[in-house]
Amino acid sequence: MIQTLTSFANPQIKMLRSLHEKKHRAEEGLFLAEGMRVVMEAVEAGYTPAYLIYGPSVRDHVVLRKLVRSTLDGKGRVIETSDDILSKLARKDNPQMVVAAFPLFDTTIGKLEVRSADIWLAAQSLKDPGNLGTLLRTADAVGAGGVILIDQSCDPFSTEAVRASMGGLFSVAVAQASWDDFLAWARSGKVDIIGASLDTTQDYQAVSYRKPTLILLGNEQSGLPEAYEKQCTQLVKMPMMGKADSLNVAVSAAVLAYEVLNQFRRK
Amino acid sequence: MIQTLTSFANPQIKMLRSLHEKKHRAEEGLFLAEGMRVVMEAVEAGYTPAYLIYGPSVRDHVVLRKLVRSTLDGKGRVIETSDDILSKLARKDNPQMVVAAFPLFDTTIGKLEVRSADIWLAAQSLKDPGNLGTLLRTADAVGAGGVILIDQSCDPFSTEAVRASMGGLFSVAVAQASWDDFLAWARSGKVDIIGASLDTTQDYQAVSYRKPTLILLGNEQSGLPEAYEKQCTQLVKMPMMGKADSLNVAVSAAVLAYEVLNQFRRK
Repeated sequence: MIQTLTSFANPQIKMLRSLHEKKHRAEEGLFLAEGMRVVMEAVEAGYTPAYLIYGPSVRDHVVLRKLVRSTLDGKGRVIETSDDILSKLARKDNPQMVVAAFPLFDTTIGKLEVRSADIWLAAQSLKDPGNLGTLLRTADAVGAGGVILIDQSCDPFSTEAVRASMGGLFSVAVAQASWDDFLAWARSGKVDIIGASLDTTQDYQAVSYRKPTLILLGNEQSGLPEAYEKQCTQLVKMPMMGKADSLNVAVSAAVLAYEVLNQFRRK
Repeated sequence: MIQTLTSFANPQIKMLRSLHEKKHRAEEGLFLAEGMRVVMEAVEAGYTPAYLIYGPSVRDHVVLRKLVRSTLDGKGRVIETSDDILSKLARKDNPQMVVAAFPLFDTTIGKLEVRSADIWLAAQSLKDPGNLGTLLRTADAVGAGGVILIDQSCDPFSTEAVRASMGGLFSVAVAQASWDDFLAWARSGKVDIIGASLDTTQDYQAVSYRKPTLILLGNEQSGLPEAYEKQCTQLVKMPMMGKADSLNVAVSAAVLAYEVLNQFRRK
């Protein structure tokens, strides 16, 4: 059954809007993803929306019909709503016509099998959800096993991170772990930890990477803590020809990950 | 002379706050840059603040004293203000304690000399100021001659772009041009135009790049128009191992730019 809800006072609408806040995501066990394409990718990857919300303009769209079917088959709820409510749900003026709420994923590191992939990405104390989303998208592109968020990082289920990942959250595994748990996991799988750092002269292209390789990035402002750098298999640096001596963290991750991928492709 | 202004009603404070909007930036001929480090880099690069605004907590900071001197020497105005006004100026809760307004730069493409650099970055109809800032930062890192914004792109002088560039706006030249003007400029300098595209099977690593090389990126949603792709010297693609078949535009630019830089370093 499809419900039509057009009042901001409706408890389900209120609950869905509350999912912009981490506290409410944790309480409800749900997070929001926007856009017909992203929601379809999620469904194709095996995820079922707990809620599917759409605007009247896409009511008869063939993809929307499939999403409605999958959601109802999976015992999820389907809500047709107004453009006005959709903008508030998306927190922007030209919102996507489809929004879905999915159950939060299990992000324990133990469920990831180190030897299942040749490349992994990890970030420590990452703060910007846009950077995290971009990192997820890069992880998808290089065929990484997943993205591991170490220590207190931003929330992969925030609307901003999900949006910036462009579907990457549904195609790439994400884990959250303390440094110690991360290190135990990495060592159990004998993965080389390659830290991106300014505290080294080691050129990133002069290293011969081995499978599996994990690329570790530090916080946007402060980089990796020195104690963590000491635990890396190797620290590497990209050449910096300018004045700033630093790159955006998601850019660094991508440049490094493509170098590793390129070396693996040549072998 | 240093003025102390702590009222939101003050006309200078009102004018400075208005610089968050493009219309007002154009009217006043000024834009905002935040943070002591970024403003210091700008001053060291030869730019003089028209206005320097700071909070009482940094009044005696040695770098602030230098900035005050440079601003007054350059006939700029120096304003000490409250934390409250600084947050409103920065539009965030934990603002930088230093904000400066600089005169807008000349962004005509004619002032750029193609043969003065080996690498150039260009983006067509770029919409996200965060992506533009990241692009500027990457351009600085790879030693690019500058970033060229083609057609209707986001404003390099928006607070978001300046912030994301982390000082890159002051160390890298920026130009804005129509496609025709861009093409005339590129051809006059005989620069190879390498377009990042999904409409090719040409691997980006299989190409031997020549100096100077310009890397051209398309709009975040739609990529490069087909008619523009036809005018490129070469289209290239990064390998995509995942489901999404696309990377963030600033990430693509960086991966390509580092490949070009790496080839040039080896020669």
